[in-house]
Order: sequence, then C-alpha cells, then structure tokens
Amino acid sequence: MDETLLMIPGPTRVAPRVLKAMSENIVNHRSAIFGKILSEATEMMSDVFRTNNKSYLITGSGTAAMEASMANILTPGDKILNIVCGKFGQRFSQIVQSFGGQPQVIDVEWGKAVNPDEIGYALEEDENIKAVTVVHNETSTGVTNPIKEIGKIMSDYNALYVVDTVSSLAGDDVDVDGYGIDICVTGSQKCMAAPPGMAAITLSDDAWKVVEQTNPKSYYLNMKKYRKSGNAEPPETPYTPSVSLMYAMHEALDIIMEEGLVKRVKRHQIAAQATRNAIKALNLELFPDESVSSTTVTAIKMPEGVTDGELRGTMRNKYRVELAGGQDHLKGNIFRIGHMGNITHREIITTVSALEMTLRELGFDISMGEGVAAVADTYLPENI
Amino acid sequence: MDETLLMIPGPTRVAPRVLKAMSENIVNHRSAIFGKILSEATEMMSDVFRTNNKSYLITGSGTAAMEASMANILTPGDKILNIVCGKFGQRFSQIVQSFGGQPQVIDVEWGKAVNPDEIGYALEEDENIKAVTVVHNETSTGVTNPIKEIGKIMSDYNALYVVDTVSSLAGDDVDVDGYGIDICVTGSQKCMAAPPGMAAITLSDDAWKVVEQTNPKSYYLNMKKYRKSGNAEPPETPYTPSVSLMYAMHEALDIIMEEGLVKRVKRHQIAAQATRNAIKALNLELFPDESVSSTTVTAIKMPEGVTDGELRGTMRNKYRVELAGGQDHLKGNIFRIGHMGNITHREIITTVSALEMTLRELGFDISMGEGVAAVADTYLPENI
Repeated sequence: MDETLLMIPGPTRVAPRVLKAMSENIVNHRSAIFGKILSEATEMMSDVFRTNNKSYLITGSGTAAMEASMANILTPGDKILNIVCGKFGQRFSQIVQSFGGQPQVIDVEWGKAVNPDEIGYALEEDENIKAVTVVHNETSTGVTNPIKEIGKIMSDYNALYVVDTVSSLAGDDVDVDGYGIDICVTGSQKCMAAPPGMAAITLSDDAWKVVEQTNPKSYYLNMKKYRKSGNAEPPETPYTPSVSLMYAMHEALDIIMEEGLVKRVKRHQIAAQATRNAIKALNLELFPDESVSSTTVTAIKMPEGVTDGELRGTMRNKYRVELAGGQDHLKGNIFRIGHMGNITHREIITTVSALEMTLRELGFDISMGEGVAAVADTYLPENI
Repeated sequence: MDETLLMIPGPTRVAPRVLKAMSENIVNHRSAIFGKILSEATEMMSDVFRTNNKSYLITGSGTAAMEASMANILTPGDKILNIVCGKFGQRFSQIVQSFGGQPQVIDVEWGKAVNPDEIGYALEEDENIKAVTVVHNETSTGVTNPIKEIGKIMSDYNALYVVDTVSSLAGDDVDVDGYGIDICVTGSQKCMAAPPGMAAITLSDDAWKVVEQTNPKSYYLNMKKYRKSGNAEPPETPYTPSVSLMYAMHEALDIIMEEGLVKRVKRHQIAAQATRNAIKALNLELFPDESVSSTTVTAIKMPEGVTDGELRGTMRNKYRVELAGGQDHLKGNIFRIGHMGNITHREIITTVSALEMTLRELGFDISMGEGVAAVADTYLPENI
C-alpha cells in the first residue's frame, strides 16, 4: 500500500501496533470477551472526553455521530442555533434541516472564530432555542472556536450545548464536564490516530432527559438503544459493530493513555507552532487570524502565481507528502497541513522541507532551510 | 484473541489474508489509490448482487443499509408492506414506523416462509403500497423466503421490491436483476466472510426515480450523496469511510470471485444439508419446515430436559464451538448453527462431533459418531 506521508486533517497515520490489532481473529460481538474490549474502550473514551458520563462507540464516520447528536434530541419545528464558521458548522445546520428543525445560524466569516458573546445575545433574544452546536476545530478553515468560554455563557441558559470535537479531541484541550458540554461527538481517524470508521458520542444527564422525551429520527443511531445495550451484561452494541475497528480503537486509546492527555495536547500545540513559524519564515500567509489558528491543522493562503494542482501535486508526486486543499469557495485559495495524531518534529521537518523544495521548483525565491530552521528552533528545549 | 470456532449466523470466520489486508497503511480516502480500491470493490459487489446497477458500500452494520433502503424512498404516511417472519422482518417495520410510514404487516408464523400469493393479494387490495420488504434469509428462525417467486408476482405491480440479503448473499441464490429486486441490501460479516462493519446497497432505475422525488430521512445514509460521490473522479464516499474495512471487503470479494458464485452457493447448500442430516441422525428436530430451511443457518428445537445455558455453554466452554441461541420468544426454545462464509466439511464435522459429546454429557442417549457419519455421508462425491 501507498507510503505517502499523510499530512491531511484525517485520516492520519496509524501506528503499526494499532494496524496490527485489526488482524486479530473476529470474535462474537455478543460475548464476554468482546464485552470486555467494548467496556474498556468506552471507559477510556470517557477519560479522553474528560467526562464522568458514559461514552458510546458507533460504527460510522464522524458525520454519523453528528447526526446522532441531532437525531435524538430534535422534534420537527425545534430551533437549533448553529455556529457556522466553515464546512462542518454548515453540516450541522443541514442535518437540523433534514430532520425538519429550524436552524438558527450565526454565520462567522470563514477564517475567524465565533465571538462567544454573540451566542449569549442569540440565547437572550430567543428562549426557545433547544440546543447550540459548535464545531470546536473547523478543519475547513483551520480555526479553533473557544468552547471553554462558550461553555461559561451556555451555563446561564437551558439550551443543550452540543460540540463537535471530531478533529480536536486528544489533540487540543477538551474538557466535556469542565466546559459543561451536553453532547460531544468525535471521530476515530483524526487526533486519536485510529483508522477511520468509528465515531464516539457522550451525553450529559440533561441531554438524556431530552433524549427520553424525543422520538428518535434514526433507527441505526437511536441512542436509547445504545444505552440499553451498553448496560447489558456483557455490554453490547445494538447492532453488529466493526469488531476489528473496536480492537484498533482499544489499542489507539491505550496509546493515548500511555502518553497522557496533557503531554499529547502539548505535543500538538508545539507541532502547530512549529508549522506556523515555518510558514512565516517562508513568507507564506496563514489563512485564519493567528490568535484562533488551529492546534491540529494549519490553513495557508495559496501563494500568488501557483495553482493548487502544482503545489500539492508536486508535494505528493515528487516528495510523497500529502497535503489537503481548500473546500467549497476556498478551493484553490488555501492549502492545509494536518498535524494530528502521531505527529512529531520529524513529520513537520519532512513536510516543511518538501514545501521549500516545491516552492523553489515552482519559481519562488526561497532560501533552502529557512522553514526547516524555524521548525527546529521551535522544538529546542529552551523554547518549549 | 479467542480461537473459538464461530458457528453463529455472523460474524463469521474471516480468512487470514482478509484480516491481513486490514494491517495495510491508511491512505487518503479522497485519493486515486483509494478510488481504485473503492470502484473495484463496488463493481465486484454488483457482480455478487448480480446486477448491472451500481452498488454502494456504507460504513455501518447491515441495519444501516436496511435503514438506508427506507430513508431514501419513504415520505411520512406512505404504506410499506412488511413481510414479518422473524426478528429482521420486524426490524423493517420498526424502521418504517420510525420515519412516520404506515407499515402494513403480513405476519407469518415464525418457522414458516411467506406464501408469495399473499403478497399478490395484498398488492391487489391496496394499490397505494409503495414498497414491499422481504428478508430473504430470516436468521432468527432459520427460514429462507422465496424471493424469486415473490419477484415474479411483484413484476405485475408498481410497488418497489426491497430485499434484505444480509445473511444470504454469496451463500444462497440471489439474482437482483433476474428477480426484479429494486433495492437490495447486505452486510459484510455473513456469507461474504469479511469483518463486520460494512454494508452494501444497490438500487434499480425505478428505485432511483422514487429516491429523486423523496426528501431523505437521514443525512449519513442519503443515497443521492453516495451516488454523486461515487461518480466523482476519483470515486469517493460522501463521508470518510472505514479505509481498512474497504481493504478487507476488496480482499473478501476477490476470494468470492476466485471461488465463483455458483460453486460458493453449492458449498453452502451442501453444508446446510449435512447439518440437517446430522440433526436428524441425532434425533433432534429442526425448528422450521425442512422445505424452507435456510441454506446458511440451521435452527434446531432445544431438546427437552436441557437448558440453552447447558447446551451452548458446554459447546462453547468445553469444545470451543460457539452456537447461537434463540431470539425474543424463541430464547431458550431453539439453538442455531450458522454455516456461512468460509465453511467446509471440517467445521461441520467439528461442530456435530462437539454436539454429540455435549448431548451425551448432558445425559442423552447418543451413539458417538452417528451425526458425524451423516455429515461425512452427505459430503461423499456420489451424494453431491
């Protein structure tokens, strides 16, 4: 299989021991041995979410968990406040619409983060808002939203606080109970560095109260069924889960526990800082305001005089480093470097070095090594 | 991991080369290399369905594909005729209900197959029935429904013909185009012998016409999005798929192609016949009528004087052979032997031999070897 270095915002590079875990024999998903794996994985998942509530693993993409978050609390006609700073914020409002809800959208300019006060104003104005959705890390623009500060404001209101941490959990600060998050969702293939195909969700007591009063809008994603099966002895999932991906999640969660969340987030923060420093050293321009720039993916304006195909094509075909392009109206206008999961100074150095050579080949006046030096400098012990 | 022989109706034993495929590096799911794997897998999937229409692979369980089959054609108030012969037939009607449809149920006694004429009568009586759902192989009762004959009757009516082949495809005769099936769904972990976690669906032109006029009831399972992404260059899925399971599906489909569908179905038929012959030789009783007994799972009445825990517990704990119990009101009343996927005479011999020893230990008057002899006899070249 392809050995290209994935520096995209998911899927990310998966450690050999996690890949290897998937080669284990398939066991009965309704057996004691699987129940043990499932309950250990979901307990570790709650530790990563930093919640005392139970977590549930769903076979599906992060989008399935986003859908689950709405399908279990929404009754047609309900108003949901969607913070839209990019593509994934939009997705929440599309999901709300598809279930007959009324999305109330706070549109934030792509490249900026939401001002928490705006959420307070919106909730003050309309007490019928049932929930607020925020995408913590908007991969499409490389922006992090201030979910801690939003949580403080949300605590004054009854609306449920729903946060998508698909591309931030285990790579940036997330504290579900500490921030007062009611429903938090994530995906396996980003900072958790597991293979794609699993999603996770956790719900607060307040969220469960709403779920209990709601006719679920999905059969496969009916969280009441997940709760019931999760409480069985041995614990189960309501439908046959991906047994192999459960092995992989368990192994990836083991790795996260071994490293420790604090250290892991710090590692992501340094990688992001090193990437930004290199970008500036190469006279490239960040797309978002640096103050809200993501810890897990850096979005960079496409330099003038070069196309996305030339830049990312050279990176991929000649240097075997895969970067992401822009999405929707940002297509061709930005490119993105994912630094999620098993990311060390080696991958950042490799990527920046390839970027230097690519830019030089494409006619830019680049002094070889300036970007790499900025990376190395960031990683020096005295600068950490 | 556990080495217990899985003789349950899914998940089934996965070949080492399929397990190994999952250890490959994760690639970008929106890359040419993944597009090639995806399009090859979906083309082979269509070959297995025996259809000229495109197939789609969904990260999720078979239930997700069942939900997709309804979520894309159903408008609240629609009448859907559900043939209910067991647990999975029921599931269709629950899904219809959850989307606000009106399930019209033909209830068939558990252990019997539906009489195709009854479907004709129901369609004759009510021309507003939008679709008919049939579970080909009802794993909960070990019964096969006559989907070919039902197809002949369906051809006189406009209602869409929706068939669940989750536990029959690649193990029993399924000919989507030949039988006039409009929507066919399946799962990875049964006769296809891939790991659990992937589902497949294919839709006829008539089905697509209805889909185009319908507001999808699910975002994650919106088939219009799957079609659009599948037609992209390179082909993609709308949301991040399980890359590792796609490798496994590709490998499992390769194996099916190497064996050939005709030979593979014949292999399942012989395994089923051998199992039934052994059951009779041991003076046990089949649960369903033998004439409609499943090719992929055999349901057997629990002999008097023994509990499910004793019988299956001894089989599992002492002989390392895992059988399935009964579901719902059949719990404790039947046990089931799955013979799906990579099943040969060896697994049937092993299972029947363990069953003989188990029954003897539990006080039954069993002559050792009578069941095994019946299996061996079935496999003799002159009897095939």
